[in-house]
Amino acid sequence: MDEAGAPPLELSDALVEKVRAALAVGDTSAAAALAAPLHAADLADLLERLDGEARRALIAALGPAFDADTLPHLDEYVRDQVIEALGPEATGEVVARLETDDAVEVLADLDEAEQAAILAGLPLPERAAIEQGLAFPEYSAGRLMQRDAVAVPEYWTVGQTIDYLRAQPDLPDEFYDIFLIDPRFRVVGAVPLSRVLRSRRAVPLKELRLKELRTFPAECDQEEVARAFRKYGLVSAPVVGADGRLLGVITVDDVVDVIEEEAEDDILKLGGVLETDFFAGPWQSARQRLPWLVVNLATAVLAATVIGLFEGAIEKLVALAVLMPMVPSMGGNAGTQTLTVTVRALAVGELTPSNTLQILWKEIAVGLVNGAVFLVLGALIVALWFRDPYLGLVFGLAMIANLTAAGLAGVTIPLALHRLGFDPAVSSAVFVTTVTDCVGFGAFLGLATLLL
Amino acid sequence: MDEAGAPPLELSDALVEKVRAALAVGDTSAAAALAAPLHAADLADLLERLDGEARRALIAALGPAFDADTLPHLDEYVRDQVIEALGPEATGEVVARLETDDAVEVLADLDEAEQAAILAGLPLPERAAIEQGLAFPEYSAGRLMQRDAVAVPEYWTVGQTIDYLRAQPDLPDEFYDIFLIDPRFRVVGAVPLSRVLRSRRAVPLKELRLKELRTFPAECDQEEVARAFRKYGLVSAPVVGADGRLLGVITVDDVVDVIEEEAEDDILKLGGVLETDFFAGPWQSARQRLPWLVVNLATAVLAATVIGLFEGAIEKLVALAVLMPMVPSMGGNAGTQTLTVTVRALAVGELTPSNTLQILWKEIAVGLVNGAVFLVLGALIVALWFRDPYLGLVFGLAMIANLTAAGLAGVTIPLALHRLGFDPAVSSAVFVTTVTDCVGFGAFLGLATLLL
Repeated sequence: MDEAGAPPLELSDALVEKVRAALAVGDTSAAAALAAPLHAADLADLLERLDGEARRALIAALGPAFDADTLPHLDEYVRDQVIEALGPEATGEVVARLETDDAVEVLADLDEAEQAAILAGLPLPERAAIEQGLAFPEYSAGRLMQRDAVAVPEYWTVGQTIDYLRAQPDLPDEFYDIFLIDPRFRVVGAVPLSRVLRSRRAVPLKELRLKELRTFPAECDQEEVARAFRKYGLVSAPVVGADGRLLGVITVDDVVDVIEEEAEDDILKLGGVLETDFFAGPWQSARQRLPWLVVNLATAVLAATVIGLFEGAIEKLVALAVLMPMVPSMGGNAGTQTLTVTVRALAVGELTPSNTLQILWKEIAVGLVNGAVFLVLGALIVALWFRDPYLGLVFGLAMIANLTAAGLAGVTIPLALHRLGFDPAVSSAVFVTTVTDCVGFGAFLGLATLLL
Repeated sequence: MDEAGAPPLELSDALVEKVRAALAVGDTSAAAALAAPLHAADLADLLERLDGEARRALIAALGPAFDADTLPHLDEYVRDQVIEALGPEATGEVVARLETDDAVEVLADLDEAEQAAILAGLPLPERAAIEQGLAFPEYSAGRLMQRDAVAVPEYWTVGQTIDYLRAQPDLPDEFYDIFLIDPRFRVVGAVPLSRVLRSRRAVPLKELRLKELRTFPAECDQEEVARAFRKYGLVSAPVVGADGRLLGVITVDDVVDVIEEEAEDDILKLGGVLETDFFAGPWQSARQRLPWLVVNLATAVLAATVIGLFEGAIEKLVALAVLMPMVPSMGGNAGTQTLTVTVRALAVGELTPSNTLQILWKEIAVGLVNGAVFLVLGALIVALWFRDPYLGLVFGLAMIANLTAAGLAGVTIPLALHRLGFDPAVSSAVFVTTVTDCVGFGAFLGLATLLL
């Protein structure tokens, strides 16, 4: 078998270790020789796995052999370090070799001084294209798109199109649809390449176009773009200006990244951490995670204040202190279940005004049903443990109250945050557990004061 | 503007309400007229938003106009109801109109009796193709692939290929790469359509093939497939048997679903709920969520037992009862932060044996740093609140101990579950909070017993 079409070189743990070992003994040229044949995505992986010093040494050793396409594959935190190691001049050279969408993505994360230093070194056309890309709002279709779209007049035939494509040297590397444009450069149709290839030369492209044309305004949020790509199985789609003119094209590989990032984002936000956490050093991670812990301290103080209201009851019956943390613990878990479902349903657009009330009733019902289970189970355990049926009853009643509150809070809190324009993934958990903590302690100790 | 290429019909909240209203007054033909022109993905959305009764009425009203492609777009829970409403015979007719990969996906979720009933009604070739698809393991490349791949002999030219494609009526709807095969039907290359279209008729396809050929064995896990598609920006890739023969093709639209589902899955598992939760009724949801709550009850009993060891200390100083829930609350949050980062790093393959130790040290460092912050902050708050500096010191020391334990548990528990072959997203949270609860209560009350 000849070289092309051969199975690709994989980045194995063993290869990472070899590169690391070579760098450790200062044999940078051996390390570069191992790294150079890797696919850009694998080189990015390798760089992410090395520590800061080894990373800089490898980049220096690769020199001009450094594959430009590595940059967009890197985690933001590692990319900053790589760009710093390259310096503005070499970064400029690397950025100039990227497609516009990738160049914009790389530059967007830098601060303005760094951006200006790199842009200053670029040839004017590239510079203008990147600056135009950066002018679109963050996370918009305009930022995501590539400017080189393949577009032909709407009245062309298959034959004309093929002749044009064969003659034109300046086309994007890969494209999946040909867009039809009217004389004012407005998009009026999209033709998948497979349809062009299967049709005779005389067939007008118009006859081959997709029944439905899905275009995206440049300001459209990338999440909306990703949702449409996923829903309708799109592979590429045109981005248009306010006047309907073709501005560029979004391809599915960029959308795949968005889908992964948005989901990733929700996971990490729900856990109270930032996207760059994994590759950040201990100091950065500690600092980034601190704010949520401080917020949690405040809510914990609130919960402690609720307990403080019932000091007298605890003094009389210390068993209350032993049992009381179980009630908010159960409520917190039930609330997390509900809020997880709610946050995801909001993110994927399944929770709409037309079914909100139905979902709210459902969650209250779930809280009552599972609350009833723990009313019985909890009352039994406590009655047997402390040989006190009344204490068991108090515990069970607090359980059902708190699980119902959890269901209610788990829907209403993320929903309210969403309606107010906040991201429900970020702060729902802390509010929901505040409710379940306060209701949990309050209900248990309050009922104990009343009934025991 | 003529019909094709027109902006597509959108599923708005208003349209959902109109359909719902028509069904409510029994005007099923009006509802069907509103629903029939929708894209399959939108019809699926509409069906998901209706309640069970309205759903059945709409399906009955649509009759043979029911778009087969709706089925793969439906949430599993809703799809079961739709298939039940259709009955095995009509479902068979609908399934026969789907591409193999979609048909396999739909049938895979049904129980064996339902599968058999539907398969019995299918024409033999479709039936054989679907049965072969179902023979591959769940979540494998074989399940994901479509059997109709476009493949031509490796020695063909662009001209021969175009002539073949024009003459062949039986090709898949959409395809993005042409695979080159040797005489034994083994894949030896992949040529993107854009390269074929841009090249003159005499050019051999071999010259146009991608430098790297990425094939997937049929048994390969879909998560691995998705990771490679994302990493290398693939749009389609061949699936091969053990002998390297071409079995089918995976296209990016199927992979987009996998990426979304895997991330979704992790989010919901971390929250202790199932994927089908949102569309399930209250009874089902309550039942599905119960097991984790029962596990949590057991761990809460464990934490209460730890408190029980120190009843004497609480009896002497009831302030301990007021303060003690704050310690595990903070530890639980810090542990959740760490485990979220760890679970995601494991899922996307960033946490490997070569950097495990480094990450473990980092998390312990983060725990110590943030623990030190709350040692000072917590000690101050408590000392001022209860006018007792020693109580403040005990509280602060318990904080730093628990935040360090949280960092340690947040890495080691998901990692251990992963090494043992379990999914760390499912059960890490419950184990980590058990550790932070027991260490939190134990450290605070234990230190109080020793030092106060």
